[in-house]
Amino acid sequence: MDDSEVYLTDVTGRDGFQMEKDWIETEDKLLILQGIFNAGIKRIEATSFVSSKSIPQLKDAKEVVGNLKNEEITVAALVPNVKGAENALESGVDEINFVLSISETHNRKNVNHTVRESLEEVYSIQKLINSPQTVLNVSLGTTFGCPFEGKYNVSKVCSIMEQLINNGIDKVTLADTTGMANPKKIRHYITTLKEVFPHVQLSLHLHNTRGMGLVNLLAGYKAGVRHFDASLGGIGGCPFAPGATGNVCLEDIVHMFMEMEIPIEHSINLQKLINTSKKLERILGYQLAGQVMKAGTAGEVIKN
Amino acid sequence: MDDSEVYLTDVTGRDGFQMEKDWIETEDKLLILQGIFNAGIKRIEATSFVSSKSIPQLKDAKEVVGNLKNEEITVAALVPNVKGAENALESGVDEINFVLSISETHNRKNVNHTVRESLEEVYSIQKLINSPQTVLNVSLGTTFGCPFEGKYNVSKVCSIMEQLINNGIDKVTLADTTGMANPKKIRHYITTLKEVFPHVQLSLHLHNTRGMGLVNLLAGYKAGVRHFDASLGGIGGCPFAPGATGNVCLEDIVHMFMEMEIPIEHSINLQKLINTSKKLERILGYQLAGQVMKAGTAGEVIKN
Repeated sequence: MDDSEVYLTDVTGRDGFQMEKDWIETEDKLLILQGIFNAGIKRIEATSFVSSKSIPQLKDAKEVVGNLKNEEITVAALVPNVKGAENALESGVDEINFVLSISETHNRKNVNHTVRESLEEVYSIQKLINSPQTVLNVSLGTTFGCPFEGKYNVSKVCSIMEQLINNGIDKVTLADTTGMANPKKIRHYITTLKEVFPHVQLSLHLHNTRGMGLVNLLAGYKAGVRHFDASLGGIGGCPFAPGATGNVCLEDIVHMFMEMEIPIEHSINLQKLINTSKKLERILGYQLAGQVMKAGTAGEVIKN
Repeated sequence: MDDSEVYLTDVTGRDGFQMEKDWIETEDKLLILQGIFNAGIKRIEATSFVSSKSIPQLKDAKEVVGNLKNEEITVAALVPNVKGAENALESGVDEINFVLSISETHNRKNVNHTVRESLEEVYSIQKLINSPQTVLNVSLGTTFGCPFEGKYNVSKVCSIMEQLINNGIDKVTLADTTGMANPKKIRHYITTLKEVFPHVQLSLHLHNTRGMGLVNLLAGYKAGVRHFDASLGGIGGCPFAPGATGNVCLEDIVHMFMEMEIPIEHSINLQKLINTSKKLERILGYQLAGQVMKAGTAGEVIKN
């Protein structure tokens, strides 16, 4: 196993905030995202460029991106279609993360397109991007199974990835939208996909829906994945996937990697991350799923 | 890696109930433990024989054991001293699980003994047991670190295990009382201990304090451990260890092993286990940490 560094993308601003029904003030959103950045996380998926009718919480997408941007940070945004990509590019994002689902049923519910239509959208977005500095990543929702269509074989994922790669996409995120993966499946998928598509940068976007968030993440790491999404306190889910609970928790992952002495890109200040998570908990007004924010790190010793 | 079966011990009745401040009726306790047994878990640590002054919740230990016992079930009970062992034997338990902590500070707080005194207690208990049917297991609390003394090396565990083994103990549970382990540490500990003590039956008792319950469990499995403790809904903790949160969740473990096609001893009915967990949630009156009980299994498909 190679000991290359792990790259973490915070998705609190997008996958986290999109699930919150009560309006979060833009300045509170920025406070949290800046806190995450100040703790050492340099790649932040800050928002989605979607219809404000479908996700009103993210109607301040342009403002969030505009205020967050600085030279040290990579700001990404999720987009479901060409319209979203145009708005994202206009706002000045560094990376566009286009989402489509492996499952027809989920893709229809999530972005109101067939998978074929979504593929056409992504090719149009490629043409829109005319700066070599702007990265295009494609996230494959329900990669490890769909709550409506059930489980399917990795060949279904291969078939869609092949089409993307033939069109020049080289960064793909495998999203376990409703936590249907397990360590054995992760290993099988990653091993297969790395063998079939050796030049693609694979990321994992995992949810803790069935308690397997961290164990799946470590299985992905052991199979060679080095790019992971996570959210502060483990908030989030998918508004169009019943039963979807939070993302894997950013500070719990950082804590695990630090305890295991697995190197992470950039130096991360775990205590700052935990403090930001506590701040987020106060803003949201309910207990977050993160465990390290409650228990403290394994390195803390209680004085008698 | 060998594909031998996994053995699960439910500790809801002991490690779970001991943390509950409000009195749980004995018949409710039995309802839950019978439900766990009916779902296919045949080894149950049902209670502790401790002073009812220190843990009033378990003052019905004798009644619980008496009512639970039948030919198909192995009923275990935790004991902290000779007095507890005498009471446990009198009640007719199949197995005595003696607890002592690796850490002097925690052992003092937990059972009010030095480690040396606890070792003397266990040797006296050995002499008490005069039926070959009654099993003696020793649980080593704070094996992977202590909230008061911090982290320590596996050699500290080796030294205590050596004394136990020289006195004929051949079943030892490594307890991560406050969730200080990580997968790397688990692997290092298990590999070392299996090499030094090849004839000891090692069990793992893990807590999810820092979110690593399942990932540590799988690391233990991969290192060759086949015996694991767990509690329904992930309830429990240690009343004398600050920051200790719940055990690894029984039904989430069963779900993970089933999804990974890892064989478990006896045929377990996961749905019955989940139903019992929901019953427990109603009895306790707060939301339990279990994830599968909320999301359903990964095999469930939602009809459109």
